[in-house]
Amino acid sequence: MSDAARLARVALSRLTEPGEPKIAALVAQMGAVALLEALSDPAQPTPEARDVATRLRGFDPETDLAHGERLGLRYVVPGDDEWPVQVDDLMRAEVLDHRGGPPLGLWVKGPTRLDELSQAVAVVGSRSATTYGTEVAAGIAQALVRAGHPVVSGGAYGIDQAAHRGALVVEGANVAVLACGADRAYPTAHRDLLDHLGRTSAVVAEVSPGCAPTRGRFLSRNRLIAALTRGTVVVEAAARSGALSTASWATRLHRHLMGVPGPVTSAQSQGVHELIRKGAASLVTRGDEVLEVVGEAGTHLVTPPRARSRPRDKLPRRDARILDAVPLASPAPISSIATTAGVALLDVQAALRRLHRDGLVELSDRGWVLTPAANE
Amino acid sequence: MSDAARLARVALSRLTEPGEPKIAALVAQMGAVALLEALSDPAQPTPEARDVATRLRGFDPETDLAHGERLGLRYVVPGDDEWPVQVDDLMRAEVLDHRGGPPLGLWVKGPTRLDELSQAVAVVGSRSATTYGTEVAAGIAQALVRAGHPVVSGGAYGIDQAAHRGALVVEGANVAVLACGADRAYPTAHRDLLDHLGRTSAVVAEVSPGCAPTRGRFLSRNRLIAALTRGTVVVEAAARSGALSTASWATRLHRHLMGVPGPVTSAQSQGVHELIRKGAASLVTRGDEVLEVVGEAGTHLVTPPRARSRPRDKLPRRDARILDAVPLASPAPISSIATTAGVALLDVQAALRRLHRDGLVELSDRGWVLTPAANE
Repeated sequence: MSDAARLARVALSRLTEPGEPKIAALVAQMGAVALLEALSDPAQPTPEARDVATRLRGFDPETDLAHGERLGLRYVVPGDDEWPVQVDDLMRAEVLDHRGGPPLGLWVKGPTRLDELSQAVAVVGSRSATTYGTEVAAGIAQALVRAGHPVVSGGAYGIDQAAHRGALVVEGANVAVLACGADRAYPTAHRDLLDHLGRTSAVVAEVSPGCAPTRGRFLSRNRLIAALTRGTVVVEAAARSGALSTASWATRLHRHLMGVPGPVTSAQSQGVHELIRKGAASLVTRGDEVLEVVGEAGTHLVTPPRARSRPRDKLPRRDARILDAVPLASPAPISSIATTAGVALLDVQAALRRLHRDGLVELSDRGWVLTPAANE
Repeated sequence: MSDAARLARVALSRLTEPGEPKIAALVAQMGAVALLEALSDPAQPTPEARDVATRLRGFDPETDLAHGERLGLRYVVPGDDEWPVQVDDLMRAEVLDHRGGPPLGLWVKGPTRLDELSQAVAVVGSRSATTYGTEVAAGIAQALVRAGHPVVSGGAYGIDQAAHRGALVVEGANVAVLACGADRAYPTAHRDLLDHLGRTSAVVAEVSPGCAPTRGRFLSRNRLIAALTRGTVVVEAAARSGALSTASWATRLHRHLMGVPGPVTSAQSQGVHELIRKGAASLVTRGDEVLEVVGEAGTHLVTPPRARSRPRDKLPRRDARILDAVPLASPAPISSIATTAGVALLDVQAALRRLHRDGLVELSDRGWVLTPAANE
């Protein structure tokens, strides 16, 4: 992309709100340079042009770019080697309708290149998460990075920060996508965390340096998290959590959507349960189940959780049948066990001796009974 | 059914183990009377015949039936008005293969007629349930009975007893299906509970009065719980819980299978999560979601959980856009809000006054900022 086009995108992203479908469509049709020229013409009759004119007073994109670079940010645009091509899915018509235009460019701080995010997974959820949710989020994020999948989240309180912190303990990409400028820290309590991610991996923002987070920008940011990643894991979300907007974007963009269940008594799991119930999200309980969903076919195969095998599993069929006839609680004489099992008395006698040796039955004054080991 | 046939079934159910596919097939082909005669012939060369002969010494079905009646039990057989025809599904060939033959008859104690169970729902789960699981089970069982759906469970510790006790507080059928004789209490600690169910609703068993519970009989009992009901709700189940055998039976019998999620850190929810993950069970979180699955089409429609609406939802579009431009944390001057929103300064001024009146923004020395109410 030419320097002029890059500068025009710097200007347009400062002057318009992210995801605006009309802007995205016009950039695609006429290019950023021509669009900026057209919008800057005060004779233009459209509301967009008037809005841009309102913001344009005393603005110079070259200064803006240099200022960003002094803050340690680079501006990545489509066509750059580093451009994450998966976000171009946001150009699809049905997505545009939801204020889902692709970003004009992305401000990035940190060594992780955005084209390394093709296997990334988003781990998101409630800001007011429970201890349960934050522990599960940290564990899943850690498992993902260990398996070579970058983790993307929003740097917020609750699940987001748990995901980032969980992923920190292993080496790998751990990317925060912010609703404010990539130079800012929101929430301010996460200044150290975001600085760390900016030094070791990446902090990404669609809005220009210095921009404040607004509600509309949070929603745009959520679409970007979904678009950048192969799949989104929602760890906790109340009935009306912002994480559900990320989930909707994942669905619209045909990304994998996964949900972690929790107690049905917890409001913070209600939104996730609803996603699973309506079939929008698949249920995952741990990192390797997420890997099974997002990984290349056949690379991650989950072994379903199994209890250890028990002594009774290895018994010959006839002994198992006799064991079945031994009561769980009230001891029974051998004759009654023989009748219940329908096996001749002498055979029962021999089998009970074998079962006793294996610790599965015991003999009391009143007869034979199962041991706790047989009840496992 | 003739008295002779009823007595032959009393005898066969005393002399064979429940669900035995060969016996079920032979009863279907030749009738219970002829089969009993054939099996009683000591010259018969089959192992089944020898097994029956072992148990047959000194047994008289008429005495057995009279003894059961003295204990307050009745013996219900196919063809009786009260026969629950849904259990005839156990005659299907693919079910027979899994020791799934239909019961020869059912011993019943209590006023609830078995043909009243056509809308019944099973609520089952771990014996070593958590407090969480027992609370959820009680709530679901109560909601089911209140909606006119009988609850069926196994009378065991944990989820079973929570389901029975939950259903007790409302009037309706609340049926325990036991792996031992319907006159016995297993576990013995549930003697009072089972007596209560036997007085007010029903205790059901396939095995004859006095029979002890054995492992094989628990598995047969589980198939009966699944067969008697329209659907099974598994509330908690570890990776190798007996409740999963009821779940498998529900699937084999094309009944509805539902699972209640729980913390992924709880071993008692692992088996349920696996059922949901593999698509065997649908996720339910409360009674009315169960009703939506098992009820007649259109009778129970669940309103998805929704958060209450918020003041910002009712704002005109332009005011919402200006509200979006107000920072969440660091106050901003009106000029910067106008630039962010891309709206003329005078309009912003008027809008901020309206938003302030609605309690959504507040003004400090350094400018405008959202109130906590706007952040809800």
